[in-house]
Amino acid sequence: MKKLIKFQFVLLVILVIFTSTDGKTETNKIILSEQGSFAVGGTININPGSFDPYNPTTAGQTFHGDHAYVFYQIPENSRKLPIVFWHGAGQFSKTWETTPDGREGFQTIFLKRSFGVYVIDQPRRGNAGRSTVESTIKPSFDEQLLFGMFRIGIWPNYFPGVQFSRNPEALNQYFRSMTPNIGLFDTNIVTNAVSALFTKIGPAILVTHSQAGGPGWMTAIKNQNVRAIVSFEPGSGFVFPEGEVPSPMPSATGTLEGISIPVGEFEKLTKIPIILYYGDNIPEKPTKSPGEDNWRVRLAMAKLWRDVINRHGGNVTLIHLPELGIHGNTHFPFSDLNNIQIADLMSEYLHEKGLD
Amino acid sequence: MKKLIKFQFVLLVILVIFTSTDGKTETNKIILSEQGSFAVGGTININPGSFDPYNPTTAGQTFHGDHAYVFYQIPENSRKLPIVFWHGAGQFSKTWETTPDGREGFQTIFLKRSFGVYVIDQPRRGNAGRSTVESTIKPSFDEQLLFGMFRIGIWPNYFPGVQFSRNPEALNQYFRSMTPNIGLFDTNIVTNAVSALFTKIGPAILVTHSQAGGPGWMTAIKNQNVRAIVSFEPGSGFVFPEGEVPSPMPSATGTLEGISIPVGEFEKLTKIPIILYYGDNIPEKPTKSPGEDNWRVRLAMAKLWRDVINRHGGNVTLIHLPELGIHGNTHFPFSDLNNIQIADLMSEYLHEKGLD
Repeated sequence: MKKLIKFQFVLLVILVIFTSTDGKTETNKIILSEQGSFAVGGTININPGSFDPYNPTTAGQTFHGDHAYVFYQIPENSRKLPIVFWHGAGQFSKTWETTPDGREGFQTIFLKRSFGVYVIDQPRRGNAGRSTVESTIKPSFDEQLLFGMFRIGIWPNYFPGVQFSRNPEALNQYFRSMTPNIGLFDTNIVTNAVSALFTKIGPAILVTHSQAGGPGWMTAIKNQNVRAIVSFEPGSGFVFPEGEVPSPMPSATGTLEGISIPVGEFEKLTKIPIILYYGDNIPEKPTKSPGEDNWRVRLAMAKLWRDVINRHGGNVTLIHLPELGIHGNTHFPFSDLNNIQIADLMSEYLHEKGLD
Repeated sequence: MKKLIKFQFVLLVILVIFTSTDGKTETNKIILSEQGSFAVGGTININPGSFDPYNPTTAGQTFHGDHAYVFYQIPENSRKLPIVFWHGAGQFSKTWETTPDGREGFQTIFLKRSFGVYVIDQPRRGNAGRSTVESTIKPSFDEQLLFGMFRIGIWPNYFPGVQFSRNPEALNQYFRSMTPNIGLFDTNIVTNAVSALFTKIGPAILVTHSQAGGPGWMTAIKNQNVRAIVSFEPGSGFVFPEGEVPSPMPSATGTLEGISIPVGEFEKLTKIPIILYYGDNIPEKPTKSPGEDNWRVRLAMAKLWRDVINRHGGNVTLIHLPELGIHGNTHFPFSDLNNIQIADLMSEYLHEKGLD
């Protein structure tokens, strides 16, 4: 029996090496059968009255807004399930494209690994800027704060061994990879649009980052075409069954609370494999560094969330990368210097779960 | 001599057919050697004071903004000069991607024709939303007006034979292919960013649409890496040498005026080949239909502009498509139903000018 397990383990390692090597050493070519973009979901508002094309006013005109914008690429001989990539707060599709230091991001890495890829700008963000609500956008001086919140370091110092390039141009690209909300962030609007995407494209794997974590669970509850979720550093929107919400968790950046939903809704999340990845420099005990303390409670909440789902029969894995001996990751493991290693972990997981 | 010319003409036609056939019947595969995205240009604002990472305020923090966002793809065995695509007013990179009715846009068509392609979101538009100026964005009921301004028809009627799908989903996608300015449109800011792109990537062909026409000329004046301009329906920003600005042109939508610049600047535009394309339903005489009358004066101004440049030794061609027997084109010839035919015209032009 022990021998059989050992044999299976060796087989797995070989498989993993093969998968991994495919990703790393694949020729530099990308062979696409199709690519393009579309808007999906959204609403149409109609202004009362009658439109006169020879004397136009706003009367009788329409406004299409609150859709998501999606850029997709389908490789030759693609795998069965494509991957939908959903950015975090302040970010847009760029987060999955070229990394701040100019290497391939998950969009291209997983394309080369033969997955169809769909990269989203959620409603009211980036190219999906046609918002149905009015909004005033002020440039705010926030970059040194974000350097800390995104756990690159404690400004102006980088964390020792952090997986982020010291080239100043990398930081320039990083700061320019943000774009504001155009109109309030609205969970219902963003999940409706992403659910509409899954209805349009059929079964797929959802990959979320940070703020998209919570809306990601809600999308999976809304739409059974979400066949698995890979969530990088989900930070909020942890949903729990009524009566099982954990105590609020105070931190240096505020108090994190779970969200109560009916158990029947919650249990839809037990039907699909879900994996969460967290990077480095997340302490276990309170600290006065806001960026680190912020993620302390979010990781702690995520662990409780995993436990509650799994108690209800779910299939949630939480990987805190340093526990695997993988150090230095920031809030963006998928674009960090070791993002091929992180992609390999994700490929292994998808393979284990029969999702590739 | 006449025979030689005839022979050369036949040779040209054969070449054109070959080029054209390449574009149309090329396999469905797209073979890329590289793709990715980056921010380029822009400014950095610094808030006075000192940043304390343990007690963060806005003091001492920075704001990176007003860059362009660029998504690029380089095909295998790419041609020498890549193409930079620059959207028009209210539009973003999507304008060059999938057409409203779901076919390939110029991004993919010219990629298949072996050009490297760079697709821009100009500063303060789409994914380049990190604007250095505050702005209030209101959803405005404008779609039936734009249906007319973009010369699809006179709402609710389509122009007879218009090259736009009658499928309602095409109109839905079309209206959702718009996104607002985040902060005022500023010619200097957008041309600085696009010029920075040409500095980064080296010599390339610039393709502009509508509002980008004028900034396109200014970019070419700023940066000698702009080796040619293909401009679809430029509508404003026509620059003339001091003393040669034509009289203002009143129309149903306002008065169009030329812009005076020093002759030394102007004459930089005589050094590169430039072609302008205009679609159908642009009348010669005043009309009460605002969309048509708007383009009447813009086409008229473009013709004067062509004549002035060519008088100064320039190399400007203006194609009014109906004069070639190509009918029904809207303000977006590159995404109209006959966009392969339009791409063929552009390929022929680039070939004639030795730009491919």
